[in-house]
Amino acid sequence: MIKVGIVGGTGYTGAELLRLLSVHPDVELSMITSRSEAGKSVSALFSGLRGKLDLNFSLPDNEQLSSCDLVFFATPNGIAMESVPELLSAGVRVIDLAADFRLSDTSLWKQWYGVEHACPDVLKEAVYGLPEMNRADIADARLVANPGCYPTATQLGLLPLVRAGLVSGNIMVDAKSGVSGAGRGANVGTLLCEASESFKAYGVSGHRHLPEIQQGIERMPGTGVSPFTGDLVFVPHLTPMIRGIHSTLYCTVKDRGIDLQALYENTFEGEPFVDVMPAGSHPETRSVRGCNQCRIAVHRPQGGDTVVILSVIDNLVKGAAGQAVQNMNIMFGLDEMTGLDFPAAMP
Amino acid sequence: MIKVGIVGGTGYTGAELLRLLSVHPDVELSMITSRSEAGKSVSALFSGLRGKLDLNFSLPDNEQLSSCDLVFFATPNGIAMESVPELLSAGVRVIDLAADFRLSDTSLWKQWYGVEHACPDVLKEAVYGLPEMNRADIADARLVANPGCYPTATQLGLLPLVRAGLVSGNIMVDAKSGVSGAGRGANVGTLLCEASESFKAYGVSGHRHLPEIQQGIERMPGTGVSPFTGDLVFVPHLTPMIRGIHSTLYCTVKDRGIDLQALYENTFEGEPFVDVMPAGSHPETRSVRGCNQCRIAVHRPQGGDTVVILSVIDNLVKGAAGQAVQNMNIMFGLDEMTGLDFPAAMP
Amino acid sequence: MIKVGIVGGTGYTGAELLRLLSVHPDVELSMITSRSEAGKSVSALFSGLRGKLDLNFSLPDNEQLSSCDLVFFATPNGIAMESVPELLSAGVRVIDLAADFRLSDTSLWKQWYGVEHACPDVLKEAVYGLPEMNRADIADARLVANPGCYPTATQLGLLPLVRAGLVSGNIMVDAKSGVSGAGRGANVGTLLCEASESFKAYGVSGHRHLPEIQQGIERMPGTGVSPFTGDLVFVPHLTPMIRGIHSTLYCTVKDRGIDLQALYENTFEGEPFVDVMPAGSHPETRSVRGCNQCRIAVHRPQGGDTVVILSVIDNLVKGAAGQAVQNMNIMFGLDEMTGLDFPAAMP
Amino acid sequence: MIKVGIVGGTGYTGAELLRLLSVHPDVELSMITSRSEAGKSVSALFSGLRGKLDLNFSLPDNEQLSSCDLVFFATPNGIAMESVPELLSAGVRVIDLAADFRLSDTSLWKQWYGVEHACPDVLKEAVYGLPEMNRADIADARLVANPGCYPTATQLGLLPLVRAGLVSGNIMVDAKSGVSGAGRGANVGTLLCEASESFKAYGVSGHRHLPEIQQGIERMPGTGVSPFTGDLVFVPHLTPMIRGIHSTLYCTVKDRGIDLQALYENTFEGEPFVDVMPAGSHPETRSVRGCNQCRIAVHRPQGGDTVVILSVIDNLVKGAAGQAVQNMNIMFGLDEMTGLDFPAAMP
Repeated sequence: MIKVGIVGGTGYTGAELLRLLSVHPDVELSMITSRSEAGKSVSALFSGLRGKLDLNFSLPDNEQLSSCDLVFFATPNGIAMESVPELLSAGVRVIDLAADFRLSDTSLWKQWYGVEHACPDVLKEAVYGLPEMNRADIADARLVANPGCYPTATQLGLLPLVRAGLVSGNIMVDAKSGVSGAGRGANVGTLLCEASESFKAYGVSGHRHLPEIQQGIERMPGTGVSPFTGDLVFVPHLTPMIRGIHSTLYCTVKDRGIDLQALYENTFEGEPFVDVMPAGSHPETRSVRGCNQCRIAVHRPQGGDTVVILSVIDNLVKGAAGQAVQNMNIMFGLDEMTGLDFPAAMP
Repeated sequence: MIKVGIVGGTGYTGAELLRLLSVHPDVELSMITSRSEAGKSVSALFSGLRGKLDLNFSLPDNEQLSSCDLVFFATPNGIAMESVPELLSAGVRVIDLAADFRLSDTSLWKQWYGVEHACPDVLKEAVYGLPEMNRADIADARLVANPGCYPTATQLGLLPLVRAGLVSGNIMVDAKSGVSGAGRGANVGTLLCEASESFKAYGVSGHRHLPEIQQGIERMPGTGVSPFTGDLVFVPHLTPMIRGIHSTLYCTVKDRGIDLQALYENTFEGEPFVDVMPAGSHPETRSVRGCNQCRIAVHRPQGGDTVVILSVIDNLVKGAAGQAVQNMNIMFGLDEMTGLDFPAAMP
Repeated sequence: MIKVGIVGGTGYTGAELLRLLSVHPDVELSMITSRSEAGKSVSALFSGLRGKLDLNFSLPDNEQLSSCDLVFFATPNGIAMESVPELLSAGVRVIDLAADFRLSDTSLWKQWYGVEHACPDVLKEAVYGLPEMNRADIADARLVANPGCYPTATQLGLLPLVRAGLVSGNIMVDAKSGVSGAGRGANVGTLLCEASESFKAYGVSGHRHLPEIQQGIERMPGTGVSPFTGDLVFVPHLTPMIRGIHSTLYCTVKDRGIDLQALYENTFEGEPFVDVMPAGSHPETRSVRGCNQCRIAVHRPQGGDTVVILSVIDNLVKGAAGQAVQNMNIMFGLDEMTGLDFPAAMP
Repeated sequence: MIKVGIVGGTGYTGAELLRLLSVHPDVELSMITSRSEAGKSVSALFSGLRGKLDLNFSLPDNEQLSSCDLVFFATPNGIAMESVPELLSAGVRVIDLAADFRLSDTSLWKQWYGVEHACPDVLKEAVYGLPEMNRADIADARLVANPGCYPTATQLGLLPLVRAGLVSGNIMVDAKSGVSGAGRGANVGTLLCEASESFKAYGVSGHRHLPEIQQGIERMPGTGVSPFTGDLVFVPHLTPMIRGIHSTLYCTVKDRGIDLQALYENTFEGEPFVDVMPAGSHPETRSVRGCNQCRIAVHRPQGGDTVVILSVIDNLVKGAAGQAVQNMNIMFGLDEMTGLDFPAAMP
């Protein structure tokens, strides 16, 4: 049994971790911390867990966390980097679901997150936890930076084309997210009366997931493959639903003769959580609701040179807690699908 | 392994059965029939099952179904009663998720469903599949009539009071259902543009679940307990959400001195799928979304003699497919929670 | 032109007042105050008003407000009672959309709202602004207490029966509200991810609209008519939609021979904003979305002695801002439908 | 008073026409036809119109329609072209809200709509009813082809850039629509349980609004301006809400020095229904809900050469019925805002 601790368990990412870990056969959930809810039972906050999880929130305490085999951070950005070095020193492995260890370049980190990075040395050993790109490194990692939700859907959608060096010109990422991506904080903008029955873009001038996607794209091409040199344009949108990300990706392909469907199917062959749908498909976000799947369809409309890729995930699962569990499975030598092998809930 | 067939797998009840059975460790899903979709793969219709279920719809065929240990009927009302006698004769056990075997009185059946019952003799041996009332009979049954969604939430909410003979006067059942209760048929009334952002009652003059609830209430009291003799008023409402039933129950209690909280907790002690919440609670339907739980809270506002009971289920799980799997577990001697032991998906 | 001021214009009630008054032909919107948004343009906060209203929020200032003919208070409870006496003295008429002047009994006020009433003398002259009960008094009033949303739908639904002295036993009010009834404050409970795709009761042990409804019922019967002496049970529910209240009312009628449909139609004959629907109807909340109508249907299921009344309004219109404009029209001798004579937006 | 008839009044476009025309001060609604609902009162179908419109559906009859000054067709594609020639001959003016007269090229029509055009001669005189492009021609037209919903939002968003000849390369139109765009037909795909809580693209291989947008773009540039010669890629998406279109437009601008904000503001100066929002804005679809406004914001993210334009409308108003009323106002010499001068309903 893997002894697991969770730091920061009162947001949606933490709640989803709890849901998944409560049925994981190889996990013993040892502690879950929350400054605001310490002493309260977890199921009093999340009534869906009543009868399934008998645990109270406790105050964060590195000493106690040090007895865990693995600690997940489901905290706001900038918290994990304060505690991770000490935990690593104590022999604990860490998966951070926030952004603290996603960007390798500390100046980029400072530019987009507004503070100096607290532990640049530790950052150097962090592995970006996208298994479809970095599986081997994840297995050996002490510290995994769990990817952002938009970056997961987007990088998986672009990986085959960019890795093969087939993209010319710019890439346009038109991404749509359910409201849970904005978190469980009490904000007017995500009230039901503000966010339902409406659709809008946000952050067009710059969103923190942009540098993360750029970094990912730069790392995709193999040796001898021409890198992507165009601009990346990223426009996120708020969609009136709870869960789901739909990334619609536009780029120009260098070679019209390429068999896109085969390229995508080959790239993801054997991947347990990436489903390349049949040619002509339109994946729905509900087809991955509650599960760790990413579904992708690739189109070239009207036989032009623009490729349109549709990539969907559940932002709280493959875009956060599910991918974290997948990373845990890899780190601890378990079958990658352990605890994640169930279908979506439709309708 | 239990060899299972499903008749009528293209509605929401059938889809939910597929979702649950696809991860049930003791079930081999052998065939699923659909007249309209025969030959098509199940996951082409329900993309959430892609990669989890490799099965095609086939035409209904009693001979093939006869090789199953258990057949679920997820058909419209009036279909199962035509085939069930033959299957029973072939040694197959049956759980009908439609209404064909719910009402013991064939004249009531005819009054509410508009046709003569096709097999009154077989009807006599049907067991009403509410485990919290009939567990022992279900275990031995060849034929189980799976309860309706409203009747499940309502009967569980009323059971402690009525069984103890404590209700005087009338019972008012103000019930609210998500739209999936209306099925997957193409009707204008359940279009997103008609049913979202609106709330309405329907069927106030009479709904088919009324006689089912009445029959259930009549069977609740034990020997020597005064039966309920008042009127039952049942008003269902359509709620702008996919899943969930919230039954708000009003009745007058004969004895104000009774400890309602203790009565409810004692009645359901040990029940794996009924959760009596702490005094003062307000259960949310999302706390049971996707899972087989029923959550109940009991109130006596302002210390008056009116008792208000709040009872929530997921209409597709405890109100249909989940309860059917629970019944299957009982019929085949499995742990009742097998395949159903997971928490709700929140948010 | 009526010179109008609004105090507290950043909530949903204030926004709805702005929407209605911006097209009212006899109103000059003179000032709108907000402590938090002072100096900001109204349309920067409510982009739906861009191009329709050129006004900035200002700090509340009784001197400036004193130049108005009429001031609406769309503030939280307990604010208006601090300013109203001074405005009345200055000759301004006032409509308070909060609860400060709804309960005549100051001890009841203190019990439910937790503070002493600031101006019991002024309270005495306040007129409860339900035109269907108090039209004549409203016309002459200096101070109108605009009713609560639940009380509006509920009192209109009960008025014919209670006024005629026909109710015996208890009244059960099972009320459902859209989320905008909870206001525009930043609370976790009304986030889209918490309140959508779910349904729950709240405040079963006691809600502030209960004494308001009780007071209304006590005033309904005419001379010589037997008053209602039973208990009033009020259970509000939160519904996953923005606007709308559906009040389902249960009571026992003393005389089964009464023609309920005729009673309701006669009671509301000539009322511009109450629509008694044909027998057998089920009003939908969307049929009054955005408009000032109340639609009512009356049923006696299965010919029993329980009457079920269905009453729907838009909580922000007939339940708040629309009724306030209706009251203004009455107070200033305008046609009651001025500025309110448009249909619902369906779908 | 303009004597108006509506052919095909049972869909959402027809219902919205009824809502708008019922309060239009210069319109006498003379007849509304429906084959399926003939004889039934309009408000029995659309309860939101109860008390606002006293009219029955009648069978379509060209003779009776010939007594009208103006007939709106709110019929499925391919119906209007059968009747329009006769009505024009009788001196009736026509606005067709379907696609019959939108494409000038009859071979394009046949390619996308699958049937021969029934009246190519009449088609020649049809004016494309986008007032911001064709106001003068609309004023004199006998026959106006009301634009599609996606084409309206998209063309208005592109007009300033394309008219000025500033676009190089391809244009990507990533468009999102509420479900009412799919109509009031009973289809499984638009059931609440299928379309809510999910997001998906559709028609990526080709949607009928693509040639309409292409035709519009070709007509935009003035004399001496270089035309757009790139590819147009159009990807529509279904969004879980009732009303609203959000068109996100991507293109490359030839000259980075251009002041985009000024270009957009100048282009639409004086337009009553196009609102160019301040630089940096993100228009929400709810800011135009129920009203005839189009709101546009223009961005150039990270100072690159990609321009991102955000354009929102209500698909049933500016995208259909509202624009039709605007066209009527122009055709009959009324102030263009008559009957349309009200704000959006928020929340």
